[in-house]
Amino acid sequence: MRLLRLGAAGHEYPAVSIDDASTQHAATFDLSTITADVDADFLAADGIARTRAALASNELAPINVSGTRIGAPIARPGKVVCIGLNYRDHAEEGGQAIPAEPVLFMKAPNTVVGPYDDVLIPRASTKTDWEIELGVVIAKTARYLESPAAAREVIAGYVISHDVSEREFQLERGGQWDKGKSCETFNPLGPWLVPIEDITNPDSLRMRLWVNGEIRQDGSTSALIFGVDYVIWYLSQFMVLEPGDLINTGTPAGVALGMPDQPYLKPDDVVELEIDQLGRQRQVFVQA
Amino acid sequence: MRLLRLGAAGHEYPAVSIDDASTQHAATFDLSTITADVDADFLAADGIARTRAALASNELAPINVSGTRIGAPIARPGKVVCIGLNYRDHAEEGGQAIPAEPVLFMKAPNTVVGPYDDVLIPRASTKTDWEIELGVVIAKTARYLESPAAAREVIAGYVISHDVSEREFQLERGGQWDKGKSCETFNPLGPWLVPIEDITNPDSLRMRLWVNGEIRQDGSTSALIFGVDYVIWYLSQFMVLEPGDLINTGTPAGVALGMPDQPYLKPDDVVELEIDQLGRQRQVFVQA
Repeated sequence: MRLLRLGAAGHEYPAVSIDDASTQHAATFDLSTITADVDADFLAADGIARTRAALASNELAPINVSGTRIGAPIARPGKVVCIGLNYRDHAEEGGQAIPAEPVLFMKAPNTVVGPYDDVLIPRASTKTDWEIELGVVIAKTARYLESPAAAREVIAGYVISHDVSEREFQLERGGQWDKGKSCETFNPLGPWLVPIEDITNPDSLRMRLWVNGEIRQDGSTSALIFGVDYVIWYLSQFMVLEPGDLINTGTPAGVALGMPDQPYLKPDDVVELEIDQLGRQRQVFVQA
Repeated sequence: MRLLRLGAAGHEYPAVSIDDASTQHAATFDLSTITADVDADFLAADGIARTRAALASNELAPINVSGTRIGAPIARPGKVVCIGLNYRDHAEEGGQAIPAEPVLFMKAPNTVVGPYDDVLIPRASTKTDWEIELGVVIAKTARYLESPAAAREVIAGYVISHDVSEREFQLERGGQWDKGKSCETFNPLGPWLVPIEDITNPDSLRMRLWVNGEIRQDGSTSALIFGVDYVIWYLSQFMVLEPGDLINTGTPAGVALGMPDQPYLKPDDVVELEIDQLGRQRQVFVQA
Protein backbone atom coordinates (compact mmCIF):
# COMPACT_ATOMS: atom_id res chain seq x y z
CA MET A 1 0.00 0.00 0.00
CA ARG A 2 1.30 3.41 -1.01
CA LEU A 3 -0.16 6.75 0.04
CA LEU A 4 0.25 9.63 -2.35
CA ARG A 5 -1.07 13.11 -3.09
CA LEU A 6 -2.15 14.15 -6.57
CA GLY A 7 -2.90 17.43 -8.32
CA ALA A 8 -1.51 20.95 -8.65
CA ALA A 9 0.97 22.21 -6.04
CA GLY A 10 -0.91 23.49 -3.03
CA HIS A 11 -4.12 21.77 -4.14
CA GLU A 12 -3.24 18.09 -3.85
CA TYR A 13 -5.83 15.48 -2.91
CA PRO A 14 -5.04 12.16 -1.23
CA ALA A 15 -4.92 8.80 -2.95
CA VAL A 16 -3.78 5.27 -2.31
CA SER A 17 -2.14 2.87 -4.71
CA ILE A 18 -1.83 -0.91 -4.55
CA ASP A 19 -0.58 -3.66 -6.81
CA ASP A 20 -3.52 -5.63 -8.16
CA ALA A 21 -2.63 -9.28 -7.71
CA SER A 22 -4.84 -10.41 -10.59
CA THR A 23 -3.60 -7.97 -13.24
CA GLN A 24 -0.07 -7.34 -11.92
CA HIS A 25 -0.74 -3.62 -12.47
CA ALA A 26 -0.92 -0.80 -9.97
CA ALA A 27 -4.39 0.46 -9.16
CA THR A 28 -4.97 3.87 -7.60
CA PHE A 29 -7.98 4.97 -5.56
CA ASP A 30 -9.28 8.32 -4.43
CA LEU A 31 -8.84 8.76 -0.67
CA SER A 32 -10.85 11.99 -0.41
CA THR A 33 -13.79 10.13 1.07
CA ILE A 34 -11.59 9.09 4.02
CA THR A 35 -9.59 12.28 4.60
CA ALA A 36 -9.03 15.74 3.13
CA ASP A 37 -5.25 15.26 3.25
CA VAL A 38 -2.41 13.03 4.36
CA ASP A 39 -1.59 15.25 7.31
CA ALA A 40 -1.02 15.19 11.06
CA ASP A 41 -4.68 14.63 11.91
CA PHE A 42 -5.02 11.77 9.43
CA LEU A 43 -1.88 10.02 10.63
CA ALA A 44 -2.64 10.53 14.33
CA ALA A 45 -6.17 9.16 13.94
CA ASP A 46 -5.01 5.81 12.55
CA GLY A 47 -5.62 6.98 8.99
CA ILE A 48 -3.40 4.28 7.55
CA ALA A 49 -5.41 1.53 9.23
CA ARG A 50 -8.65 3.14 8.07
CA THR A 51 -7.29 3.30 4.52
CA ARG A 52 -6.39 -0.37 4.65
CA ALA A 53 -9.87 -1.23 5.86
CA ALA A 54 -11.50 0.89 3.15
CA LEU A 55 -9.43 -0.86 0.51
CA ALA A 56 -10.35 -4.27 1.89
CA SER A 57 -14.05 -3.46 1.74
CA ASN A 58 -13.81 -2.08 -1.80
CA GLU A 59 -15.31 1.25 -0.83
CA LEU A 60 -12.79 3.50 -2.60
CA ALA A 61 -13.31 4.76 -6.16
CA PRO A 62 -10.55 3.92 -8.67
CA ILE A 63 -8.98 6.88 -10.47
CA ASN A 64 -6.93 7.32 -13.62
CA VAL A 65 -3.73 9.08 -12.66
CA SER A 66 -2.03 9.43 -16.04
CA GLY A 67 -0.92 12.99 -16.65
CA THR A 68 -1.62 14.06 -13.08
CA ARG A 69 1.13 15.76 -11.09
CA ILE A 70 2.33 13.80 -8.07
CA GLY A 71 2.96 15.99 -5.04
CA ALA A 72 4.82 15.24 -1.84
CA PRO A 73 2.96 12.33 -0.19
CA ILE A 74 2.35 14.24 3.04
CA ALA A 75 1.11 17.76 3.80
CA ARG A 76 3.78 20.27 4.82
CA PRO A 77 5.50 18.85 7.93
CA GLY A 78 5.56 20.67 11.25
CA LYS A 79 9.31 20.20 11.19
CA VAL A 80 11.99 18.50 9.10
CA VAL A 81 14.77 17.08 11.28
CA CYS A 82 17.88 15.66 9.62
CA ILE A 83 20.67 13.37 10.75
CA GLY A 84 24.10 14.28 9.43
CA LEU A 85 27.05 12.00 8.69
CA ASN A 86 25.03 8.86 9.33
CA TYR A 87 26.91 6.73 6.79
CA ARG A 88 30.59 6.09 7.45
CA ASP A 89 31.60 6.43 3.80
CA HIS A 90 29.85 9.82 3.47
CA ALA A 91 31.49 11.20 6.63
CA GLU A 92 34.86 10.10 5.29
CA GLU A 93 34.35 11.59 1.80
CA GLY A 94 33.59 14.96 3.40
CA GLY A 95 36.62 14.77 5.66
CA GLN A 96 34.43 14.66 8.78
CA ALA A 97 34.86 12.51 11.87
CA ILE A 98 32.56 9.53 12.40
CA PRO A 99 30.01 10.86 14.90
CA ALA A 100 29.87 9.39 18.40
CA GLU A 101 26.16 10.19 18.56
CA PRO A 102 23.69 11.45 15.94
CA VAL A 103 24.39 14.88 14.46
CA LEU A 104 21.12 16.80 14.19
CA PHE A 105 20.17 19.75 11.99
CA MET A 106 16.98 21.11 10.44
CA LYS A 107 15.53 22.11 7.11
CA ALA A 108 12.77 24.68 6.76
CA PRO A 109 9.48 22.77 6.27
CA ASN A 110 8.59 24.90 3.24
CA THR A 111 11.42 23.26 1.30
CA VAL A 112 9.24 20.19 0.70
CA VAL A 113 8.11 19.79 -2.93
CA GLY A 114 6.91 16.95 -5.13
CA PRO A 115 9.22 14.18 -6.38
CA TYR A 116 9.12 15.37 -10.01
CA ASP A 117 9.04 19.13 -9.43
CA ASP A 118 11.87 21.36 -10.63
CA VAL A 119 14.52 22.18 -8.03
CA LEU A 120 15.82 25.75 -7.93
CA ILE A 121 19.57 26.41 -7.81
CA PRO A 122 19.86 29.40 -5.45
CA ARG A 123 20.90 32.67 -7.08
CA ALA A 124 24.34 32.94 -5.50
CA SER A 125 25.00 29.20 -5.50
CA THR A 126 28.09 27.55 -6.92
CA LYS A 127 27.90 24.32 -4.89
CA THR A 128 24.39 22.84 -5.11
CA ASP A 129 24.67 19.16 -4.25
CA TRP A 130 22.48 16.07 -4.05
CA GLU A 131 21.78 13.66 -1.14
CA ILE A 132 19.47 10.67 -1.34
CA GLU A 133 18.01 9.76 2.05
CA LEU A 134 15.52 7.44 3.63
CA GLY A 135 12.79 9.69 5.04
CA VAL A 136 10.74 8.64 8.05
CA VAL A 137 7.27 10.10 8.65
CA ILE A 138 5.98 10.27 12.22
CA ALA A 139 2.46 9.06 13.06
CA LYS A 140 2.22 9.60 16.82
CA THR A 141 3.67 12.09 19.29
CA ALA A 142 7.07 10.92 20.54
CA ARG A 143 8.42 12.43 23.76
CA TYR A 144 11.18 10.77 25.80
CA LEU A 145 10.65 7.35 24.22
CA GLU A 146 11.90 4.65 26.56
CA SER A 147 13.86 2.63 24.02
CA PRO A 148 14.66 2.38 20.32
CA ALA A 149 12.15 -0.48 20.15
CA ALA A 150 9.40 1.93 21.16
CA ALA A 151 10.16 4.03 18.08
CA ARG A 152 8.38 1.59 15.79
CA GLU A 153 5.07 2.49 17.44
CA VAL A 154 5.35 6.14 16.37
CA ILE A 155 6.48 5.69 12.76
CA ALA A 156 3.89 6.03 9.97
CA GLY A 157 6.16 4.88 7.18
CA TYR A 158 9.02 5.56 4.80
CA VAL A 159 9.59 7.82 1.83
CA ILE A 160 12.38 8.87 -0.53
CA SER A 161 13.69 12.24 0.64
CA HIS A 162 16.12 14.34 -1.38
CA ASP A 163 18.12 16.50 1.05
CA VAL A 164 19.38 19.01 -1.53
CA SER A 165 22.30 20.96 -0.03
CA GLU A 166 24.34 24.05 -0.92
CA ARG A 167 27.84 23.30 0.35
CA GLU A 168 29.22 26.83 0.38
CA PHE A 169 26.17 28.06 2.32
CA GLN A 170 26.39 25.00 4.60
CA LEU A 171 30.11 24.92 5.34
CA GLU A 172 31.80 28.19 4.37
CA ARG A 173 29.35 30.93 5.41
CA GLY A 174 29.71 31.18 9.14
CA GLY A 175 28.76 28.04 10.96
CA GLN A 176 25.67 25.87 11.35
CA TRP A 177 24.60 23.73 8.41
CA ASP A 178 20.96 24.91 8.30
CA LYS A 179 22.01 27.85 6.08
CA GLY A 180 22.75 25.50 3.18
CA LYS A 181 19.81 23.18 3.74
CA SER A 182 16.70 25.38 3.66
CA CYS A 183 16.72 26.97 0.19
CA GLU A 184 13.48 27.03 -1.80
CA THR A 185 12.50 23.56 -3.22
CA PHE A 186 15.42 21.83 -1.43
CA ASN A 187 13.42 18.81 -0.21
CA PRO A 188 11.74 16.78 -2.99
CA LEU A 189 9.69 14.07 -1.25
CA GLY A 190 7.91 10.98 -2.49
CA PRO A 191 6.36 9.74 -4.67
CA TRP A 192 4.88 7.51 -1.96
CA LEU A 193 4.54 7.20 1.77
CA VAL A 194 4.79 3.45 2.32
CA PRO A 195 3.44 2.31 5.70
CA ILE A 196 5.96 0.77 8.06
CA GLU A 197 4.03 -2.52 8.05
CA ASP A 198 4.56 -2.86 4.31
CA ILE A 199 8.37 -2.60 4.39
CA THR A 200 9.71 -5.96 5.42
CA ASN A 201 13.42 -5.08 5.31
CA PRO A 202 13.92 -1.43 6.33
CA ASP A 203 17.48 -2.27 7.32
CA SER A 204 18.54 -3.38 3.86
CA LEU A 205 16.93 -1.00 1.39
CA ARG A 206 19.16 -0.23 -1.58
CA MET A 207 19.26 3.47 -2.45
CA ARG A 208 20.63 4.89 -5.67
CA LEU A 209 20.97 8.33 -7.24
CA TRP A 210 21.91 9.28 -10.78
CA VAL A 211 22.94 12.64 -12.26
CA ASN A 212 22.29 12.92 -15.99
CA GLY A 213 22.07 9.15 -16.11
CA GLU A 214 25.39 8.47 -14.36
CA ILE A 215 25.15 6.70 -11.05
CA ARG A 216 26.56 8.79 -8.21
CA GLN A 217 25.25 7.20 -5.02
CA ASP A 218 24.68 3.48 -4.52
CA GLY A 219 24.18 2.62 -0.88
CA SER A 220 21.93 0.70 1.46
CA THR A 221 20.24 1.43 4.75
CA SER A 222 22.26 -1.55 6.04
CA ALA A 223 25.21 0.87 6.34
CA LEU A 224 23.46 3.39 8.59
CA ILE A 225 25.63 4.18 11.62
CA PHE A 226 22.54 4.95 13.70
CA GLY A 227 19.52 2.95 12.55
CA VAL A 228 16.02 4.35 12.14
CA ASP A 229 14.67 3.19 15.49
CA TYR A 230 17.70 4.50 17.35
CA VAL A 231 17.46 7.88 15.61
CA ILE A 232 13.77 8.34 16.47
CA TRP A 233 14.38 7.34 20.10
CA TYR A 234 17.39 9.67 20.27
CA LEU A 235 15.53 12.66 18.80
CA SER A 236 12.68 12.18 21.26
CA GLN A 237 15.10 12.93 24.11
CA PHE A 238 15.79 16.41 22.67
CA MET A 239 12.45 17.47 21.16
CA VAL A 240 8.84 16.41 20.83
CA LEU A 241 8.22 14.66 17.51
CA GLU A 242 4.67 15.04 16.22
CA PRO A 243 2.43 13.38 13.63
CA GLY A 244 3.39 14.49 10.14
CA ASP A 245 6.98 15.40 11.03
CA LEU A 246 9.65 14.26 8.58
CA ILE A 247 13.01 12.80 9.64
CA ASN A 248 15.77 12.58 7.01
CA THR A 249 18.11 9.85 8.17
CA GLY A 250 21.34 10.70 6.31
CA THR A 251 22.99 10.05 2.96
CA PRO A 252 25.61 7.51 1.81
CA ALA A 253 28.79 8.42 -0.11
CA GLY A 254 28.82 9.77 -3.64
CA VAL A 255 27.85 13.44 -3.31
CA ALA A 256 29.63 16.14 -5.33
CA LEU A 257 31.34 17.44 -2.19
CA GLY A 258 33.24 14.17 -1.92
CA MET A 259 34.21 13.71 -5.57
CA PRO A 260 37.66 14.77 -6.83
CA ASP A 261 36.32 17.20 -9.45
CA GLN A 262 33.28 18.27 -7.36
CA PRO A 263 30.73 18.29 -10.18
CA TYR A 264 28.10 20.46 -8.49
CA LEU A 265 24.71 20.78 -10.13
CA LYS A 266 24.06 23.27 -12.93
CA PRO A 267 20.88 24.32 -14.74
CA ASP A 268 19.32 21.54 -16.86
CA ASP A 269 20.99 18.77 -14.88
CA VAL A 270 18.63 15.88 -14.18
CA VAL A 271 18.78 13.99 -10.88
CA GLU A 272 16.99 10.68 -10.39
CA LEU A 273 16.66 8.82 -7.10
CA GLU A 274 15.41 5.36 -6.21
CA ILE A 275 14.98 3.37 -3.00
CA ASP A 276 13.78 -0.23 -2.92
CA GLN A 277 9.97 -0.38 -2.50
CA LEU A 278 9.71 3.42 -2.21
CA GLY A 279 9.62 4.33 -5.89
CA ARG A 280 11.62 6.80 -7.93
CA GLN A 281 12.09 10.57 -8.16
CA ARG A 282 13.28 12.73 -11.05
CA GLN A 283 14.07 16.45 -10.88
CA VAL A 284 15.33 18.98 -13.41
CA PHE A 285 17.52 21.65 -11.80
CA VAL A 286 16.87 25.22 -12.91
CA GLN A 287 18.28 28.60 -11.94
CA ALA A 288 16.28 30.48 -9.29
CA MET B 1 -1.85 48.58 19.38
CA ARG B 2 -0.96 45.12 20.67
CA LEU B 3 -2.20 41.83 19.27
CA LEU B 4 -2.56 38.94 21.67
CA ARG B 5 -4.14 35.51 22.01
CA LEU B 6 -6.14 34.52 25.08
CA GLY B 7 -7.44 31.28 26.53
CA ALA B 8 -6.31 27.73 27.20
CA ALA B 9 -3.28 26.36 25.37
CA GLY B 10 -4.32 25.15 21.95
CA HIS B 11 -7.66 26.96 22.16
CA GLU B 12 -6.59 30.63 22.13
CA TYR B 13 -8.75 33.31 20.54
CA PRO B 14 -7.42 36.59 19.14
CA ALA B 15 -7.66 39.94 20.86
CA VAL B 16 -6.27 43.44 20.56
CA SER B 17 -5.25 45.80 23.33
CA ILE B 18 -4.78 49.56 23.27
CA ASP B 19 -4.09 52.30 25.81
CA ASP B 20 -7.21 54.34 26.30
CA ALA B 21 -6.12 57.98 26.13
CA SER B 22 -8.98 59.22 28.33
CA THR B 23 -8.58 56.72 31.19
CA GLN B 24 -4.83 55.97 30.86
CA HIS B 25 -5.74 52.29 31.19
CA ALA B 26 -5.36 49.46 28.75
CA ALA B 27 -8.51 48.30 27.00
CA THR B 28 -8.77 44.90 25.34
CA PHE B 29 -11.16 43.88 22.57
CA ASP B 30 -12.24 40.57 21.10
CA LEU B 31 -10.82 40.12 17.60
CA SER B 32 -12.79 36.94 16.80
CA THR B 33 -15.15 38.90 14.58
CA ILE B 34 -12.20 39.84 12.34
CA THR B 35 -10.24 36.58 12.31
CA ALA B 36 -10.22 33.12 13.86
CA ASP B 37 -6.54 33.47 14.75
CA VAL B 38 -3.41 35.60 14.46
CA ASP B 39 -1.92 33.34 11.82
CA ALA B 40 -0.33 33.36 8.37
CA ASP B 41 -3.62 34.04 6.57
CA PHE B 42 -4.52 36.92 8.88
CA LEU B 43 -1.11 38.57 8.59
CA ALA B 44 -0.85 38.07 4.82
CA ALA B 45 -4.32 39.55 4.24
CA ASP B 46 -3.48 42.88 5.92
CA GLY B 47 -5.07 41.74 9.15
CA ILE B 48 -3.21 44.35 11.17
CA ALA B 49 -4.60 47.19 9.03
CA ARG B 50 -8.08 45.68 9.26
CA THR B 51 -7.75 45.49 13.03
CA ARG B 52 -6.72 49.11 13.18
CA ALA B 53 -9.73 50.10 11.07
CA ALA B 54 -12.09 48.05 13.23
CA LEU B 55 -10.73 49.75 16.35
CA ALA B 56 -11.14 53.18 14.78
CA SER B 57 -14.77 52.49 13.93
CA ASN B 58 -15.54 51.12 17.41
CA GLU B 59 -16.84 47.83 16.03
CA LEU B 60 -14.96 45.51 18.43
CA ALA B 61 -16.45 44.30 21.69
CA PRO B 62 -14.45 45.04 24.88
CA ILE B 63 -13.52 42.05 27.02
CA ASN B 64 -12.42 41.56 30.60
CA VAL B 65 -9.12 39.68 30.52
CA SER B 66 -8.41 39.31 34.23
CA GLY B 67 -7.61 35.72 35.10
CA THR B 68 -7.37 34.64 31.48
CA ARG B 69 -4.24 32.84 30.29
CA ILE B 70 -2.22 34.74 27.71
CA GLY B 71 -0.86 32.50 24.96
CA ALA B 72 1.81 33.17 22.37
CA PRO B 73 0.55 36.14 20.30
CA ILE B 74 0.77 34.22 17.01
CA ALA B 75 -0.32 30.76 15.94
CA ARG B 76 2.41 28.15 15.66
CA PRO B 77 4.96 29.50 13.14
CA GLY B 78 5.85 27.67 9.94
CA LYS B 79 9.46 28.02 11.03
CA VAL B 80 11.54 29.62 13.75
CA VAL B 81 14.84 30.95 12.43
CA CYS B 82 17.44 32.26 14.86
CA ILE B 83 20.51 34.45 14.52
CA GLY B 84 23.43 33.42 16.71
CA LEU B 85 26.15 35.60 18.23
CA ASN B 86 24.47 38.81 17.07
CA TYR B 87 25.68 40.89 20.05
CA ARG B 88 29.42 41.40 20.41
CA ASP B 89 29.39 41.03 24.20
CA HIS B 90 27.50 37.72 24.02
CA ALA B 91 29.88 36.28 21.41
CA GLU B 92 32.80 37.25 23.63
CA GLU B 93 31.32 35.80 26.83
CA GLY B 94 30.91 32.45 25.07
CA GLY B 95 34.43 32.52 23.72
CA GLN B 96 33.16 32.68 20.13
CA ALA B 97 34.50 34.82 17.27
CA ILE B 98 32.52 37.88 16.16
CA PRO B 99 30.71 36.63 13.06
CA ALA B 100 31.55 38.08 9.65
CA GLU B 101 28.00 37.42 8.50
CA PRO B 102 24.89 36.24 10.33
CA VAL B 103 25.04 32.80 11.94
CA LEU B 104 21.76 30.97 11.32
CA PHE B 105 20.14 28.10 13.16
CA MET B 106 16.61 26.85 13.80
CA LYS B 107 14.29 25.92 16.60
CA ALA B 108 11.45 23.43 16.19
CA PRO B 109 8.22 25.45 15.79
CA ASN B 110 6.47 23.36 18.46
CA THR B 111 8.73 24.92 21.10
CA VAL B 112 6.57 28.07 21.10
CA VAL B 113 4.51 28.52 24.29
CA GLY B 114 2.87 31.43 26.10
CA PRO B 115 4.86 34.11 27.94
CA TYR B 116 3.73 32.94 31.41
CA ASP B 117 3.68 29.18 30.80
CA ASP B 118 6.02 26.88 32.71
CA VAL B 119 9.24 25.95 30.93
CA LEU B 120 10.40 22.34 31.15
CA ILE B 121 14.01 21.56 32.04
CA PRO B 122 14.83 18.54 29.85
CA ARG B 123 15.28 15.25 31.67
CA ALA B 124 19.01 14.85 31.07
CA SER B 125 19.76 18.56 31.27
CA THR B 126 22.42 20.11 33.47
CA LYS B 127 22.88 23.34 31.48
CA THR B 128 19.50 24.93 30.76
CA ASP B 129 20.14 28.60 30.02
CA TRP B 130 18.17 31.79 29.25
CA GLU B 131 18.37 34.18 26.28
CA ILE B 132 16.19 37.24 25.87
CA GLU B 133 15.73 38.19 22.21
CA LEU B 134 13.83 40.61 20.02
CA GLY B 135 11.51 38.43 17.93
CA VAL B 136 10.38 39.54 14.48
CA VAL B 137 7.16 38.18 12.96
CA ILE B 138 6.88 38.04 9.16
CA ALA B 139 3.74 39.36 7.41
CA LYS B 140 4.51 38.81 3.73
CA THR B 141 6.48 36.26 1.73
CA ALA B 142 10.14 37.32 1.45
CA ARG B 143 12.24 35.75 -1.30
CA TYR B 144 15.50 37.30 -2.51
CA LEU B 145 14.69 40.74 -1.11
CA GLU B 146 16.61 43.40 -3.03
CA SER B 147 17.87 45.35 -0.03
CA PRO B 148 17.64 45.58 3.75
CA ALA B 149 15.29 48.55 3.25
CA ALA B 150 12.83 46.20 1.51
CA ALA B 151 12.67 44.10 4.67
CA ARG B 152 10.43 46.62 6.42
CA GLU B 153 7.66 45.81 3.95
CA VAL B 154 7.52 42.16 5.03
CA ILE B 155 7.65 42.60 8.82
CA ALA B 156 4.40 42.35 10.79
CA GLY B 157 5.88 43.46 14.09
CA TYR B 158 7.96 42.68 17.14
CA VAL B 159 7.64 40.42 20.16
CA ILE B 160 9.66 39.28 23.18
CA SER B 161 11.11 35.86 22.39
CA HIS B 162 12.83 33.69 24.97
CA ASP B 163 15.33 31.46 23.17
CA VAL B 164 15.78 28.93 25.97
CA SER B 165 18.91 26.85 25.31
CA GLU B 166 20.53 23.71 26.69
CA ARG B 167 24.27 24.34 26.42
CA GLU B 168 25.49 20.77 26.75
CA PHE B 169 23.05 19.62 24.06
CA GLN B 170 23.96 22.65 21.93
CA LEU B 171 27.74 22.61 22.22
CA GLU B 172 29.00 19.30 23.59
CA ARG B 173 26.85 16.64 21.93
CA GLY B 174 28.18 16.35 18.42
CA GLY B 175 27.86 19.54 16.44
CA GLN B 176 25.04 21.82 15.23
CA TRP B 177 23.32 23.97 17.78
CA ASP B 178 19.74 22.92 16.92
CA LYS B 179 20.05 19.96 19.33
CA GLY B 180 20.07 22.31 22.31
CA LYS B 181 17.45 24.72 21.00
CA SER B 182 14.37 22.61 20.24
CA CYS B 183 13.41 21.06 23.55
CA GLU B 184 9.76 21.11 24.62
CA THR B 185 8.55 24.61 25.73
CA PHE B 186 11.89 26.23 24.79
CA ASN B 187 10.40 29.32 23.12
CA PRO B 188 8.10 31.41 25.33
CA LEU B 189 6.68 34.17 23.12
CA GLY B 190 4.75 37.35 23.83
CA PRO B 191 2.70 38.65 25.55
CA TRP B 192 2.07 40.90 22.54
CA LEU B 193 2.78 41.19 18.86
CA VAL B 194 3.29 44.95 18.42
CA PRO B 195 2.95 46.12 14.80
CA ILE B 196 6.07 47.55 13.20
CA GLU B 197 4.32 50.90 12.71
CA ASP B 198 3.82 51.24 16.46
CA ILE B 199 7.50 50.85 17.41
CA THR B 200 9.19 54.16 16.78
CA ASN B 201 12.70 53.16 17.89
CA PRO B 202 13.32 49.48 17.04
CA ASP B 203 17.05 50.21 17.03
CA SER B 204 17.18 51.30 20.67
CA LEU B 205 14.89 48.97 22.60
CA ARG B 206 16.21 48.15 26.06
CA MET B 207 15.93 44.46 26.90
CA ARG B 208 16.34 43.01 30.37
CA LEU B 209 16.14 39.56 31.95
CA TRP B 210 16.04 38.61 35.62
CA VAL B 211 16.54 35.22 37.30
CA ASN B 212 14.91 34.96 40.72
CA GLY B 213 14.78 38.75 40.80
CA GLU B 214 18.48 39.31 40.00
CA ILE B 215 19.19 41.06 36.75
CA ARG B 216 21.24 38.91 34.39
CA GLN B 217 20.88 40.53 30.97
CA ASP B 218 20.59 44.27 30.36
CA GLY B 219 21.13 45.15 26.71
CA SER B 220 19.65 47.11 23.86
CA THR B 221 18.89 46.42 20.24
CA SER B 222 21.27 49.32 19.54
CA ALA B 223 24.11 46.80 20.05
CA LEU B 224 22.94 44.33 17.40
CA ILE B 225 25.83 43.45 15.07
CA PHE B 226 23.40 42.79 12.22
CA GLY B 227 20.24 44.89 12.50
CA VAL B 228 16.72 43.61 11.97
CA ASP B 229 16.35 44.82 8.38
CA TYR B 230 19.74 43.39 7.41
CA VAL B 231 18.91 40.04 9.01
CA ILE B 232 15.59 39.69 7.18
CA TRP B 233 17.18 40.66 3.85
CA TYR B 234 20.04 38.23 4.49
CA LEU B 235 17.78 35.30 5.40
CA SER B 236 15.70 35.87 2.26
CA GLN B 237 18.77 35.01 0.17
CA PHE B 238 18.92 31.53 1.72
CA MET B 239 15.28 30.59 2.27
CA VAL B 240 11.74 31.77 1.63
CA LEU B 241 10.30 33.55 4.66
CA GLU B 242 6.53 33.29 4.94
CA PRO B 243 3.73 35.04 6.82
CA GLY B 244 3.67 33.94 10.45
CA ASP B 245 7.34 32.88 10.55
CA LEU B 246 9.29 33.95 13.64
CA ILE B 247 12.85 35.28 13.53
CA ASN B 248 14.81 35.42 16.81
CA THR B 249 17.48 38.06 16.34
CA GLY B 250 20.04 37.14 18.98
CA THR B 251 20.76 37.72 22.66
CA PRO B 252 23.06 40.18 24.49
CA ALA B 253 25.56 39.16 27.19
CA GLY B 254 24.60 37.84 30.60
CA VAL B 255 23.63 34.21 30.00
CA ALA B 256 24.71 31.47 32.42
CA LEU B 257 27.15 30.09 29.84
CA GLY B 258 29.17 33.29 30.12
CA MET B 259 29.14 33.73 33.89
CA PRO B 260 32.06 32.55 36.04
CA ASP B 261 30.02 30.19 38.17
CA GLN B 262 27.60 29.21 35.35
CA PRO B 263 24.38 29.31 37.37
CA TYR B 264 22.24 27.21 35.04
CA LEU B 265 18.51 27.01 35.69
CA LYS B 266 17.06 24.54 38.18
CA PRO B 267 13.49 23.62 39.10
CA ASP B 268 11.50 26.46 40.72
CA ASP B 269 13.74 29.17 39.26
CA VAL B 270 11.75 32.14 37.96
CA VAL B 271 12.85 34.00 34.84
CA GLU B 272 11.37 37.38 33.92
CA LEU B 273 11.98 39.23 30.66
CA GLU B 274 11.13 42.71 29.47
CA ILE B 275 11.68 44.70 26.28
CA ASP B 276 10.66 48.35 25.90
CA GLN B 277 7.12 48.63 24.47
CA LEU B 278 6.81 44.83 24.10
CA GLY B 279 5.70 43.95 27.63
CA ARG B 280 6.99 41.42 30.09
CA GLN B 281 7.26 37.64 30.44
CA ARG B 282 7.56 35.45 33.53
CA GLN B 283 8.22 31.70 33.58
CA VAL B 284 8.68 29.15 36.32
CA PHE B 285 11.13 26.41 35.35
CA VAL B 286 10.07 22.85 36.23
CA GLN B 287 11.58 19.42 35.68
CA ALA B 288 10.32 17.60 32.56
